[in-house]
Amino acid sequence: MGRADIEASQPGAPSSPTRELAAWAVSAKPGSIGATAHAWAEDAILDWFGVTLAGSREPLSLMLAEAAREEGDGPARLVGLADSLSPLNAALVNGAASHALDYDDVNSRMMGHPTVPLVPVLLAIADTRKVSGPDFLDAFVVGYETEVLAAEMVGLSHYDRGWHMTATIGTLGAAAAAARLLGLDAERAAHALGLAVAQAAGLKSMFGTMSKPFQVGKSASNGLLAARLAGKGMTSRTDALECAQGLADTQSDGFTPQEISPGGNSAYAVEGNLFKYHAACYLTHSSIEAARQLRLERGVAPEAIERLTIEVNKGALSVCNIERPETGLQVKFSLRHTVAMALSGRDTADLNAYTDDLAQDEALRELGRRSMVVGVEADTRTVGRVRAELKDGTVVEEIRDVGVPAADQPAQRQRLLEKYRTLGEPVLGAARTVELADRIFALAEIEDASVLSALAQPD
Amino acid sequence: MGRADIEASQPGAPSSPTRELAAWAVSAKPGSIGATAHAWAEDAILDWFGVTLAGSREPLSLMLAEAAREEGDGPARLVGLADSLSPLNAALVNGAASHALDYDDVNSRMMGHPTVPLVPVLLAIADTRKVSGPDFLDAFVVGYETEVLAAEMVGLSHYDRGWHMTATIGTLGAAAAAARLLGLDAERAAHALGLAVAQAAGLKSMFGTMSKPFQVGKSASNGLLAARLAGKGMTSRTDALECAQGLADTQSDGFTPQEISPGGNSAYAVEGNLFKYHAACYLTHSSIEAARQLRLERGVAPEAIERLTIEVNKGALSVCNIERPETGLQVKFSLRHTVAMALSGRDTADLNAYTDDLAQDEALRELGRRSMVVGVEADTRTVGRVRAELKDGTVVEEIRDVGVPAADQPAQRQRLLEKYRTLGEPVLGAARTVELADRIFALAEIEDASVLSALAQPD
Repeated sequence: MGRADIEASQPGAPSSPTRELAAWAVSAKPGSIGATAHAWAEDAILDWFGVTLAGSREPLSLMLAEAAREEGDGPARLVGLADSLSPLNAALVNGAASHALDYDDVNSRMMGHPTVPLVPVLLAIADTRKVSGPDFLDAFVVGYETEVLAAEMVGLSHYDRGWHMTATIGTLGAAAAAARLLGLDAERAAHALGLAVAQAAGLKSMFGTMSKPFQVGKSASNGLLAARLAGKGMTSRTDALECAQGLADTQSDGFTPQEISPGGNSAYAVEGNLFKYHAACYLTHSSIEAARQLRLERGVAPEAIERLTIEVNKGALSVCNIERPETGLQVKFSLRHTVAMALSGRDTADLNAYTDDLAQDEALRELGRRSMVVGVEADTRTVGRVRAELKDGTVVEEIRDVGVPAADQPAQRQRLLEKYRTLGEPVLGAARTVELADRIFALAEIEDASVLSALAQPD
Repeated sequence: MGRADIEASQPGAPSSPTRELAAWAVSAKPGSIGATAHAWAEDAILDWFGVTLAGSREPLSLMLAEAAREEGDGPARLVGLADSLSPLNAALVNGAASHALDYDDVNSRMMGHPTVPLVPVLLAIADTRKVSGPDFLDAFVVGYETEVLAAEMVGLSHYDRGWHMTATIGTLGAAAAAARLLGLDAERAAHALGLAVAQAAGLKSMFGTMSKPFQVGKSASNGLLAARLAGKGMTSRTDALECAQGLADTQSDGFTPQEISPGGNSAYAVEGNLFKYHAACYLTHSSIEAARQLRLERGVAPEAIERLTIEVNKGALSVCNIERPETGLQVKFSLRHTVAMALSGRDTADLNAYTDDLAQDEALRELGRRSMVVGVEADTRTVGRVRAELKDGTVVEEIRDVGVPAADQPAQRQRLLEKYRTLGEPVLGAARTVELADRIFALAEIEDASVLSALAQPD
């Protein structure tokens, strides 16, 4: 402890980006966050339950649940499993389970997965004190916005340096959402963000191991702990994002303040949420969508194709261009094979579709041999173009970019419902899966949001 | 998830520094760690109980205990409080309490506090499964060694960049100690270190706030979780210290492998442990010791002094050179005032000595006005020299360096016992305080180490 310690954390400190963000998170008025943001929030929550129900069956989720169970019971329910555990442990397990399949939603402004650090925290709080549906939705929107703004302040260099932004920045979003639901004032909320920075961890080098979803579960649990401790008076830096040797200073190339003005002229960040509809590498999704369009709208059949060109941003070539996949896992990283699946009407959304048999499928392989993958300097990281030269001499092509948020939110919801049912029904059965979705879409009128976790447990 | 994910974590991977460290931690033979290392471990454990008993009364410890209590009961005891909580929560609270006063031991090779992340983990495990005294001591020595070796591999640039090494590196030591007590094999222990790296966090910018000890509590709890999850089969990188975008790559200037050969020709790192005997800033300690020596061995009385010169490494000037302290806290950062205390026979070890009245004490202030503080380019960061020019014309001086480990361990133990009793008795009473010390010194013969936590709870 040095003399600087004595001088840290002055009371009556001047405004700072961290304190402004915290103040906004807890003081944005209920009712000021409108129906559009709420509808997007409901879509994200629905999708979260789908991927978490399916993810709850993964080995890593079961290992975590076993360790958490050893810590004792509590009031907070696990999703997809029958246990009720302590709030911190439930947030840990549910957070990891929701990212176990890497099938959850994405936000390009934060270079990560926005929803998985948030919903586990909201559920854990709703299981311990009464939380209304509108408050649940508001806290989600606020946590989401905090993640995106904090990510933009810290900058993408944070990701480039090796940090798993979903985990690190997610801790701040979780803390902000929890601070709001727990009724912290602006000063306490700023300490909550500081206590989140004090715990923020998670490296990209862990990708491909069970540590990746584990890091997400920790971000949820740690964010919840930060807000609870701040609520009890525990202190931290209240300028932890921007201070010397704070988050940005130690883990990025610099700090860039951002204006905090959602809901005025600009949309909430949640309205830019991106969903995954295919259980394959995200950088195959645009090409899959383009191929799907060729089949469904342009009537292109595989046997009519002479030659196929798949054009992607060249960055994708080092990620998902396995030319001749031999295993189901490799199929997920093969542009040729996933595009062949889409052109052949195979289900690319089904987690169980990606088998070794699928990799060996001769019809798909044969179409793959008529395909060429080209990397170009594209405007976006995610764009995909599929051009089919047909045997009759005509050429048809489609271009898609899954990095662009949906323009038609109601249509998005219908498509998400299909994915959600596919993932949820094996765990909850058809009736309860539908009932849970109905309650999610009725959150704006629900008095007690703990009905969600209650419905998400199997009988 | 990219293609690199598929290729990560190959089975049968070649040797690596992380894997070697993990393998040593769990396979060093019981009995191979000798009596000297055990004696030092006992001293560190004794000192830990003293500072934790006193620290358990601090506001931050009570806040954490309250939050942990809300998570439910369990088998693991808090030190100094009557609660028994879940193992992870007990490790969190005990870890933070033990660092609450910043009065715990130090190791210069790790630029941090080695014992606070370890003992809470060992106690939590001993409260849940039978752990013998010798196994308890071995795990402590191994965890300590892991911290020092990991710190040297990652390098002091980690600290310079703003990381709180006690918290980050402490997580690895805690994981290694827990992996050993839980009986993990070498492969699982390497995953435990990876899961520790996945959670490692804590910034120096938090110093001076309650987040500092909180970060230490988290390192204990997170290290324990890492080992427990690895024991259940959870995977991570097994080369997390040295891999691309691993701990060293993301958080220091580079990775330097270290030979792992303690106990052979070289001593265990624990034999270089440094204890704090004064409840003031560590950089005042050498000067206090020198002044104490002037009084006790050279018979120098304050009224005989014409002029006093305190010579320290110039780095200390920006830390603890408050010329005229006005508060008790400022006294802790005043070389003049603490040296005056030592020369006047005042108790510098007593936490309660540092009052505002002490700051205003005219006799001490008057001696301070006859003192001069000089910063020099010294060989070590911690050295202190005190020179007294006496009114009779003679000049006497003493030089001390608290950064040099004690040469006489039994004498160290006697001195530690005094500090321990001062800290422990107000919480446990005299009889139980002595009984706990007796059991710590008998660990090598004890069958069930949970007797320690049982004795450390007040009636």
